[in-house]
Amino acid sequence: MNHKKRRLEVCLSPAIYEKHANDENIVVVIDVLRATSSICNAFANGVKRIIPVATVEEARQKKEDGYTVASERDGYVLDFADFGNSPFNFSADKVKGKEIVYSTTNGTRCIHMASHSREVLIGSFLNLSALANYLLKQDAPVLIFCASWKDRFSLEDTVCAGALAERLLASGQFESICDAVTASVDLWSLAKDDLFGYIQKAAQKDRLASKGLDDCIAFCHEPDQMDLVPYFDDGSLLAKVSTPCEVNE
Amino acid sequence: MNHKKRRLEVCLSPAIYEKHANDENIVVVIDVLRATSSICNAFANGVKRIIPVATVEEARQKKEDGYTVASERDGYVLDFADFGNSPFNFSADKVKGKEIVYSTTNGTRCIHMASHSREVLIGSFLNLSALANYLLKQDAPVLIFCASWKDRFSLEDTVCAGALAERLLASGQFESICDAVTASVDLWSLAKDDLFGYIQKAAQKDRLASKGLDDCIAFCHEPDQMDLVPYFDDGSLLAKVSTPCEVNE
Repeated sequence: MNHKKRRLEVCLSPAIYEKHANDENIVVVIDVLRATSSICNAFANGVKRIIPVATVEEARQKKEDGYTVASERDGYVLDFADFGNSPFNFSADKVKGKEIVYSTTNGTRCIHMASHSREVLIGSFLNLSALANYLLKQDAPVLIFCASWKDRFSLEDTVCAGALAERLLASGQFESICDAVTASVDLWSLAKDDLFGYIQKAAQKDRLASKGLDDCIAFCHEPDQMDLVPYFDDGSLLAKVSTPCEVNE
Repeated sequence: MNHKKRRLEVCLSPAIYEKHANDENIVVVIDVLRATSSICNAFANGVKRIIPVATVEEARQKKEDGYTVASERDGYVLDFADFGNSPFNFSADKVKGKEIVYSTTNGTRCIHMASHSREVLIGSFLNLSALANYLLKQDAPVLIFCASWKDRFSLEDTVCAGALAERLLASGQFESICDAVTASVDLWSLAKDDLFGYIQKAAQKDRLASKGLDDCIAFCHEPDQMDLVPYFDDGSLLAKVSTPCEVNE
């Protein structure tokens, strides 16, 4: 075997995305608190399809068209929406077998920003091993794209990026000349023995707590709850099953 | 004492700067490899004044006006310039008592971006304690601004930001709800026992090495070589002496 190694990069903010953008990339969008964790949980609970929309106006229109709509801005459920962004809202009784519309502050925007790429995948701690297993079977450069918070650096997204990057680098398939890979792996090395304890330092935890929305933080930092890899295709999110598993409803 | 605590933030890339910009900030621009290290060394070696310019055209015009000009792009000295960006070029025999013009890829741009702020200071490992001492005597929020590399995250600038942030937070004067502060302090905690060893992972080290420009890396990571705080005022860089010291020529 003398394959050329695959490029691995981490993008720490949508504001930097253009510097990393490449049509050949497989992009993994990560928004741990809470968009991509919620998307993973929705597929684990049997959602048929998720239509991510970027604007409140699109979400409102989809509601008028008869869709179930999950939509919030800055952590608050929009008045016309069926529910907001907590992963606990995407329960089987609400989403199983349905097509739902989903609009969030950051996650949706990043999915659309990356849609020029070879593939756009949805990543979180919940599907970490499934993602790694899937990516190791492909043959393209990988960009891990932290959704961050209003373009600012986000600790939980970066630590999750580091957890995934560590797995990919350990395979020997990848190489990196990206300092954000180094930093995210090093932050993950500090966090991994007590992830929930480490993430208490994250600003987003306090932002959610101030709105009573922090009940999902432990859930969002519990790795490997599902063997699914959601992906974006032709305007919709669908999911690949990475390895055979019992889907938890 | 019941003072309100001062805000501390770290900006990891010029692409994110607008999210942190505030006229009240004291901004510390850090470009360890090599612009801000070179500026500090120039003042240690007795430069009278440095005029930072943003474009090659301005630098060329200043050369025609008779100035000594330090100018490079992507690590290469421009043909009309007297010398490039290595801190070793700013020796006493070349800069003592002179006004020089300085144009670099990232550092100059960041200085100008931040010029709306209350103060713009020049930071590096070389003047770390001088900076901390100066900042602890002021009464304004502090933003540490990593110049980075072409808008991408830079390990050495972030670790230097963490070293400064750790000193400021230890004083009890500051508070932070900025994840980039947390990450930079944590990366500094990993690096500080063997800073030169840690920074071998930085991509910029390899970029400089590929052009034979890496001879200054150890020098740029040796803290506290001078008690100077360069600052930007009315288009020029001048320097405050933070604590009385012998200037090393």
